[in-house]
Amino acid sequence: MAKANAVVGQSGGPTGVINASLVGVIEEAKKHPEIEKLYGAVHAVAGMVKNEFIDLKEISADDLDIVAASPSSALGSSRDKPDEAYCEKIMEVFKKRDIRYFFYIGGNDSANTAHIINNMAADSGYEMKAFHIPKTVDNDLLVTDHCPGFGTAAKFVACAVMGDDLDNRALPGIKIDVIMGRHAGFLTAAAALGKQNKDDGPHLVYVPERPVEIDKFLSDVDGVYKKLGRCVIAVSEGICDVDGVPLAKKIAQNSETDAHGNIQLSGSGALADFLAEQVRGKLGVQRVRADTFGYLQRSFAGLQSDVDAKEARACGIQAVKFAMEETSGSVALERTGDGENYATKLFKTELCNVAELTKSFPDEFINEDGNGITDAFVKYALPLTGGLPNIAFLQNRPKV
Amino acid sequence: MAKANAVVGQSGGPTGVINASLVGVIEEAKKHPEIEKLYGAVHAVAGMVKNEFIDLKEISADDLDIVAASPSSALGSSRDKPDEAYCEKIMEVFKKRDIRYFFYIGGNDSANTAHIINNMAADSGYEMKAFHIPKTVDNDLLVTDHCPGFGTAAKFVACAVMGDDLDNRALPGIKIDVIMGRHAGFLTAAAALGKQNKDDGPHLVYVPERPVEIDKFLSDVDGVYKKLGRCVIAVSEGICDVDGVPLAKKIAQNSETDAHGNIQLSGSGALADFLAEQVRGKLGVQRVRADTFGYLQRSFAGLQSDVDAKEARACGIQAVKFAMEETSGSVALERTGDGENYATKLFKTELCNVAELTKSFPDEFINEDGNGITDAFVKYALPLTGGLPNIAFLQNRPKV
Repeated sequence: MAKANAVVGQSGGPTGVINASLVGVIEEAKKHPEIEKLYGAVHAVAGMVKNEFIDLKEISADDLDIVAASPSSALGSSRDKPDEAYCEKIMEVFKKRDIRYFFYIGGNDSANTAHIINNMAADSGYEMKAFHIPKTVDNDLLVTDHCPGFGTAAKFVACAVMGDDLDNRALPGIKIDVIMGRHAGFLTAAAALGKQNKDDGPHLVYVPERPVEIDKFLSDVDGVYKKLGRCVIAVSEGICDVDGVPLAKKIAQNSETDAHGNIQLSGSGALADFLAEQVRGKLGVQRVRADTFGYLQRSFAGLQSDVDAKEARACGIQAVKFAMEETSGSVALERTGDGENYATKLFKTELCNVAELTKSFPDEFINEDGNGITDAFVKYALPLTGGLPNIAFLQNRPKV
Repeated sequence: MAKANAVVGQSGGPTGVINASLVGVIEEAKKHPEIEKLYGAVHAVAGMVKNEFIDLKEISADDLDIVAASPSSALGSSRDKPDEAYCEKIMEVFKKRDIRYFFYIGGNDSANTAHIINNMAADSGYEMKAFHIPKTVDNDLLVTDHCPGFGTAAKFVACAVMGDDLDNRALPGIKIDVIMGRHAGFLTAAAALGKQNKDDGPHLVYVPERPVEIDKFLSDVDGVYKKLGRCVIAVSEGICDVDGVPLAKKIAQNSETDAHGNIQLSGSGALADFLAEQVRGKLGVQRVRADTFGYLQRSFAGLQSDVDAKEARACGIQAVKFAMEETSGSVALERTGDGENYATKLFKTELCNVAELTKSFPDEFINEDGNGITDAFVKYALPLTGGLPNIAFLQNRPKV
């Protein structure tokens, strides 16, 4: 391909390392004279159709390092799901600007957008390459061993629950933590990555892949509470009732408006509050608390997993390298070593392989009772957090 | 005083550095042969009346360093508020164990407990010294310039809102963050410590010291949203209506139970959800999100402010030093330098000075409109966080 311009965009929900991937694209693109201009699309596809771009090659290496260390999407993001007509508009802008390299950082919807545009270019005989760079805290993309963004979010969740468990040791009771992941249980399961002692929390973990029957849930909690005098529970925001309907949805449907006519139970804390009320009412435990971790999981400043940040940047770099040599595709991670020898290498997969379905939390990562995770998950996920803090408590020492 | 034993306890809500104060007490006590045994009271006063103690002098320096870096109260805590009878029981145990040094890490209630027991000992002619070591994320103790525990919680809140503001830039809308502090606005105000650019969030900050009239709140939000196309709001969990009643309490009173007969709006996310619904309903903005930071603010693992951790440890050390030389009292911090020359020194104040009232967020830290904080607060609080991460975004660069 002759000299041409490139564009990069960041799509969907932000993560703690999506900017590391962006910076990887920028620093590698700077090395290739084949890429004349590197445009950053402001607010992803929305900026592409509105012709809103910034020049990324002129940013200094020092400034790029700060961007790479910052959470959220530095170019701005978009929730638009482009249809054919939307993509036609993007193609027009691409042609007008002689954009022949398209780098898109995001989840499976973003891979799909890259796929549509790639096909559109091919159909119209416009020489162009489209590369998808994986990103999601949910860790639910196909093909790749894991997704950049997950390790950092997992580190946040693990650190949060490690601290919360110590808090619960200090002031015992029942604590419920509602964690991101509407369809896949990976991030909720990460709550257990910091466990060191047999009686450390979380004592129960519920993922969306297993139906949660409320009486069974209460009996699980009761069992732990009777044994330990306390119980820390990690619950995915997407847990479903036995009929497959998300509990959060049921709570919203059953809620009534109050005198103000405005309050609904569909808010951010509704599932946590509902579960806390169930425990309080039916188990008669006095000290029941519930937190919903919310956006902090994906956007906390200054808490990257170094492994995750490095891999995210490498994916951005590799996307540009692939674009120089290969046909369109999506960058994926293969695990080549584990434990202390943890290592990955990058490979290319077809866009259509990533654009369609998503991955569920595997059966082998869920315990038989459906209320906890297995050692296989810890082995899989722990290297991705880049090390967790060393913590301790003293209460269990011999009494004198 | 002849050789005698000492006891140390940790009371009230955990913080990120209350263990650093504990370790300060232990390492200094090890140096003084006057202190024969150093007992750790398991679950604070509850362990004292139940005679549940561990031996703290036998813990290695390496293990102590891990404890000092860990959040929550390593000895366990208690919410008990001892009355005279309760304190009589404690005195009995103290006498039986020849405990003549009492170190108590906590807020003003803990200072009060130390005060009562100190008076009781004096009245009964039992030679004993009681020292209170300040601790609270609320930063509301009298006399001291600031409280160990606040800096670390402030760092957490600042980092959370820095990231959340970048998230809101990427996907614009209205975001409400509900932050700890039932009576004092310090921690909520810390949400603004990471602001670097003029249009950085939080754009509005509401503390319990100023009544919040809901129409004024909505008009504030509307103003920011119309100007910037987005708005990040930090709200204290304790904000009150114009009649002085906490909004959270009103919401709980107005709530109805649903078909299950269990759900109430008094839960952890109720204030956030109520405010989000008000904004959604009355301003007609589609993308409104709300998070309640919850326990993460006080117990997150691996995120201490180094200044805070150092000061907390120094307070523990100094309490033992004071106990060797002076009469009973509470350790307090005096600020002796500011900005880049930030420095503190420790002094002793009487227990009664700290045991009674608490401090409100000062007027000079609140802007005229009652919806933001002043530079004076930033100058006061920023040194306590021990440095915040350097972050950046790219959207505001010139379009090409």
